[in-house]
Amino acid sequence: MAETLQLDDNRFFDSDPAIRNVARDLYEEVRNLAIISPHGHTEPAWFNENHPFPDPTELLIIPDHYVFRMLYSQGITLEALGIPTADGSTVETDRRRSWQIFGDNFHLFAGTPTGAWLSHQFALVFGVKEKLSGVSAMRIYDEITEKLQSPEFRPRALFDRFNIEVLTTTDPAESTLEHHQSIRNSSWNGNVVPCFRPDGVTDLNHPQWHANLHALSEVSGIETSTYADFIDALENRRAFFKSNGAVSTDHGVFSPHTEELSRQEAEKVFQQALQGGVTREDAARFTAHMLMEMARMSTEDGLVMQIHPGSFRDHNEAVFNRFGADKGCDIPVQTEYTRNLRPLLGKYGSDSRFRLIIFTLDEATYSRELAPLAGHYPALKLGPPWWFNDSIAGMTRFRERVTETAGIYNTVGFNDDTRAFPSIPARHDLARRVDSNFLARLVSRHIIDMSDALIMVRALAYDLVKQAYNV
Amino acid sequence: MAETLQLDDNRFFDSDPAIRNVARDLYEEVRNLAIISPHGHTEPAWFNENHPFPDPTELLIIPDHYVFRMLYSQGITLEALGIPTADGSTVETDRRRSWQIFGDNFHLFAGTPTGAWLSHQFALVFGVKEKLSGVSAMRIYDEITEKLQSPEFRPRALFDRFNIEVLTTTDPAESTLEHHQSIRNSSWNGNVVPCFRPDGVTDLNHPQWHANLHALSEVSGIETSTYADFIDALENRRAFFKSNGAVSTDHGVFSPHTEELSRQEAEKVFQQALQGGVTREDAARFTAHMLMEMARMSTEDGLVMQIHPGSFRDHNEAVFNRFGADKGCDIPVQTEYTRNLRPLLGKYGSDSRFRLIIFTLDEATYSRELAPLAGHYPALKLGPPWWFNDSIAGMTRFRERVTETAGIYNTVGFNDDTRAFPSIPARHDLARRVDSNFLARLVSRHIIDMSDALIMVRALAYDLVKQAYNV
Amino acid sequence: MAETLQLDDNRFFDSDPAIRNVARDLYEEVRNLAIISPHGHTEPAWFNENHPFPDPTELLIIPDHYVFRMLYSQGITLEALGIPTADGSTVETDRRRSWQIFGDNFHLFAGTPTGAWLSHQFALVFGVKEKLSGVSAMRIYDEITEKLQSPEFRPRALFDRFNIEVLTTTDPAESTLEHHQSIRNSSWNGNVVPCFRPDGVTDLNHPQWHANLHALSEVSGIETSTYADFIDALENRRAFFKSNGAVSTDHGVFSPHTEELSRQEAEKVFQQALQGGVTREDAARFTAHMLMEMARMSTEDGLVMQIHPGSFRDHNEAVFNRFGADKGCDIPVQTEYTRNLRPLLGKYGSDSRFRLIIFTLDEATYSRELAPLAGHYPALKLGPPWWFNDSIAGMTRFRERVTETAGIYNTVGFNDDTRAFPSIPARHDLARRVDSNFLARLVSRHIIDMSDALIMVRALAYDLVKQAYNV
Repeated sequence: MAETLQLDDNRFFDSDPAIRNVARDLYEEVRNLAIISPHGHTEPAWFNENHPFPDPTELLIIPDHYVFRMLYSQGITLEALGIPTADGSTVETDRRRSWQIFGDNFHLFAGTPTGAWLSHQFALVFGVKEKLSGVSAMRIYDEITEKLQSPEFRPRALFDRFNIEVLTTTDPAESTLEHHQSIRNSSWNGNVVPCFRPDGVTDLNHPQWHANLHALSEVSGIETSTYADFIDALENRRAFFKSNGAVSTDHGVFSPHTEELSRQEAEKVFQQALQGGVTREDAARFTAHMLMEMARMSTEDGLVMQIHPGSFRDHNEAVFNRFGADKGCDIPVQTEYTRNLRPLLGKYGSDSRFRLIIFTLDEATYSRELAPLAGHYPALKLGPPWWFNDSIAGMTRFRERVTETAGIYNTVGFNDDTRAFPSIPARHDLARRVDSNFLARLVSRHIIDMSDALIMVRALAYDLVKQAYNV
Repeated sequence: MAETLQLDDNRFFDSDPAIRNVARDLYEEVRNLAIISPHGHTEPAWFNENHPFPDPTELLIIPDHYVFRMLYSQGITLEALGIPTADGSTVETDRRRSWQIFGDNFHLFAGTPTGAWLSHQFALVFGVKEKLSGVSAMRIYDEITEKLQSPEFRPRALFDRFNIEVLTTTDPAESTLEHHQSIRNSSWNGNVVPCFRPDGVTDLNHPQWHANLHALSEVSGIETSTYADFIDALENRRAFFKSNGAVSTDHGVFSPHTEELSRQEAEKVFQQALQGGVTREDAARFTAHMLMEMARMSTEDGLVMQIHPGSFRDHNEAVFNRFGADKGCDIPVQTEYTRNLRPLLGKYGSDSRFRLIIFTLDEATYSRELAPLAGHYPALKLGPPWWFNDSIAGMTRFRERVTETAGIYNTVGFNDDTRAFPSIPARHDLARRVDSNFLARLVSRHIIDMSDALIMVRALAYDLVKQAYNV
Repeated sequence: MAETLQLDDNRFFDSDPAIRNVARDLYEEVRNLAIISPHGHTEPAWFNENHPFPDPTELLIIPDHYVFRMLYSQGITLEALGIPTADGSTVETDRRRSWQIFGDNFHLFAGTPTGAWLSHQFALVFGVKEKLSGVSAMRIYDEITEKLQSPEFRPRALFDRFNIEVLTTTDPAESTLEHHQSIRNSSWNGNVVPCFRPDGVTDLNHPQWHANLHALSEVSGIETSTYADFIDALENRRAFFKSNGAVSTDHGVFSPHTEELSRQEAEKVFQQALQGGVTREDAARFTAHMLMEMARMSTEDGLVMQIHPGSFRDHNEAVFNRFGADKGCDIPVQTEYTRNLRPLLGKYGSDSRFRLIIFTLDEATYSRELAPLAGHYPALKLGPPWWFNDSIAGMTRFRERVTETAGIYNTVGFNDDTRAFPSIPARHDLARRVDSNFLARLVSRHIIDMSDALIMVRALAYDLVKQAYNV
């Protein structure tokens, strides 16, 4: 007999009643506010085609590297979980068998945000009444599978039920945005907008760079044989994205280094790349230069610029070769912002037409670099705790290290940044609870008073994200 | 109608009664102890001339980069706040208008130490009864303005009322200390002492280096045309500072790198600087060498040596060019101590005549480098959390990361390090509350007992700073 | 009259009853479990010879650099404490006088883990009833001295009383393990096993490298005049250690850099070292290569590999020259894992025959690098907080920063890592209390439930260490 799954109404709040009661009051103010999801990785096709999600394994395990990386770390192969290989060779195709492994090992997630998000989804999205375990795994599989077939669990129905006001996807520069356009032309009112992420063409060392550049040329109708034309093509695509609802760009760079190259230098490096002979150093300088260019374009077209640096992608080469990117083996590295961002902030950081949102995987920079930078430069705002740091203790550390120097008004609310669609309400709910608890602690220590806190909790849950991303 | 401003007697203490009651008892032991302020940036002229402070904007906004950097980060120009430009060109001169902007935006400081210090000043220094806001701004401006005209609010009267036992200013090597001398020769008993800060002559790349060197030569009567004479002139000024009450020196260096140059090398680099041709690398090595020399002099004259490294000064070049230094755009960088301080600590770190107090803006070094170093070298003590870290959570993190390795007796109590004179009692009161709460947490967990805590809270508030700075 | 020494039953638990009561319940589940000590620095001779420990100073001060480094930091000389010099020149030989200094300064340890461990030893190992101070020092000295003479306080009796299931020592590659063998051949059942630590021969810059290599050659019977023979000799010793109960190896390297050299390169560098002409860079690359080789051997013989990087050994050269190594002047440095471990993890990190346990002195890497690495690579587990971080707040920070990304099942329970034998029960008890409190906080916030917590607390205290080290 499996144990009952019950979510306590006061979960994630401190047990001290002087904090918990305040946290609860604050949370109730924001609990039902609409969700603004300004950065994430869901598939626009889901909402365009509105097909049922096939089964729990495909919905909850296969797209979610948070889930399968933990299982892999305990010796479970990705093959056994049904993660598709890059070359299409056979893996486990029995979804029930993969789910059983998940159930057998669900205790690994105790104390992790993934565990908390999954429990929320089981209980509140799918109405499951027992804890996932080896014993209950098949019952829960069947229960969710059945629900997924019903109209209420189709993508659009869930979107509406989750009370999502805006959902942002992430799309390459060369995307045709066909699903976004089709959604906008449909009778459905859901607001799904793209985000312009040109890494595949701005990173000259990207394995698919030539193909990506060719695709960019095709969709823009601009022959990208010179640097100048390449810039034109990017401006063309930004305008296209903007006309399809985009409000932001995103840049996943290894280092946040920024540096302006002369037009001649940029052209020279670009030509070397075209001929396949660019050095790693020149490619890095070109990326640094492209951040400057993207900032310039943002001052002109108003798209909000996001930088996500500091991940050593595909650290496990064998996993990358067999399964491809985003398979749970990206590992953070130490990241420097003070010197690296100086050229960009010196040129655009006080420009009222510009907004830059910075993320980090390196918590040591919260109080040392990021809060001081955001507490000075008007254009700079701090994104929420990212990836591994998007957790109960991680979000709390972010607020504790950032607020005293930068206040809350130089931060931008919450991003879920997820590929796991049904986790969106779980993630936003958890963030709202954690921020409520953070503010309640300040109230309990008389650092702020309740009238401040009521304004601040709403800002953190809704107002700031709306302002920051102009949605 | 603005809200009432009330400071809770238990502010900054944990709400759990088992902690709060102990914290309160500990705090009451130190609440009224005299203030020793061994490091700061107030103007000695204020206490010499004892003129009334002109108005709230000039007193509380214009000198305080903590205040105007936050306003700047939200798009308010420094001009609008009346911050004077370097070339004297026009800025807002209507002090009331600048104050109104401050009031309109006071919510930005919610949850920041600046907010807590300002509320303390409003309530307890100026007797203001309502919270600052756009609505109350002009009333509060008038109320403070009126008070500032009364004798009780002149600098010396406030100094006495604040119960300051010693107040240390920071003064360049070439200072004549005329205000300090005049204060000492006056009938007023306030103890205002200088601190010897020779950065302007030891940093060969300082923009005013030649002028500073010339001034040093003038005041010392020693022609500084050779390195040997330069050293003589510095020793001369240290003796002069000491005879005027100084107990310490201060060194604001980019890196805490220490390295001894041969006399020949030092002379060679000094001559290159005189001729305007020193490289950045040689200047950095010269600074590293001067830290060694300053340590040597400290072993001889007993002045306590302070090092404040790790700030990238004037990060925003446009603001620096228009407004000058110390305008809220200094940003911390990662700082290394273990290797950098080794030459200095190897030579002087176990010398009983020497005391070195180290500060940091890089919290990652608290437990990794600084506490282990201070828990070994007899000459080394850790300064309190500095600048952005001088906050409720910041001070708590310092104690939590340092105490287990270095104890409290390798730390030196509190520094306010401020240019904002009326914030001094607020800052010391906050520090005493935070330390009381830190100790109360240890008591509540039976890590220390109450008899330990009573000794420790007094050490943190008064005894350690007195011993560390020999005052 | 000295104060009474009393250990509160709820020590180290949060005062909030909602946490404390749960912590207490969890702690009671593990309080009396046997101690597994898989990594430490006690002397096997103690348990082989079973002589009485001579006196409190020799037992509790002289071997414990945690104790004397703090006293040194406050200006007390190592000579006065009786720490033996490297050349055998005279130091204080009056053990009572050294103990009196310790008593006079015991307040320095307030709030430190050393203070907590010592109080536990005084109260629960030796039955002392008063707090150590200058007043009580001699009485306590006499009381402990008397006890040490009784049979109940001989090493084997204490071992049994401490309920130690396995105690691991640390032994150089060239050790004959004579004490371990003699213990195994004795009638006593205590399980004391060696750990293979070959730093003295794998670090080509080790001051005793030639002598160590010669000794390795002697004990293995393999002439180590080529790199290939050197590898054979190491494999020979690993087999020998394993046959004497070893389950693990340990590698104390400055950097965790790993890099595979070709056999030719390795041979070349080894020959240079034999001829006394190896460069620092080549020696570092050889160490990096030896980590790869050790990992390879572990996949073959199953010994668990431990890496302890990031300590700048013997930072105070004068102390090292006079007193030798391990005298409290090793200082941590920033350490990088993501890039440095990639070659090793790429080759062996997913090999089911391999287990690597990583330690750090750089807390900034917990959430940034180590938890993400351990949350992916199956072979990699995280060792407990090491050295300066093995403390109440330090262990809590470790759990808070690691658990959300890696869970608890990628960690390996507790290591005491001590030279101070009677501190072993104190250290394990403190760790069990801290882990109980950590879990109780999660329970109090409904992040985990009590049924999870009961399994987890036992895992942290006993199961994980047993699995990780195959004991």
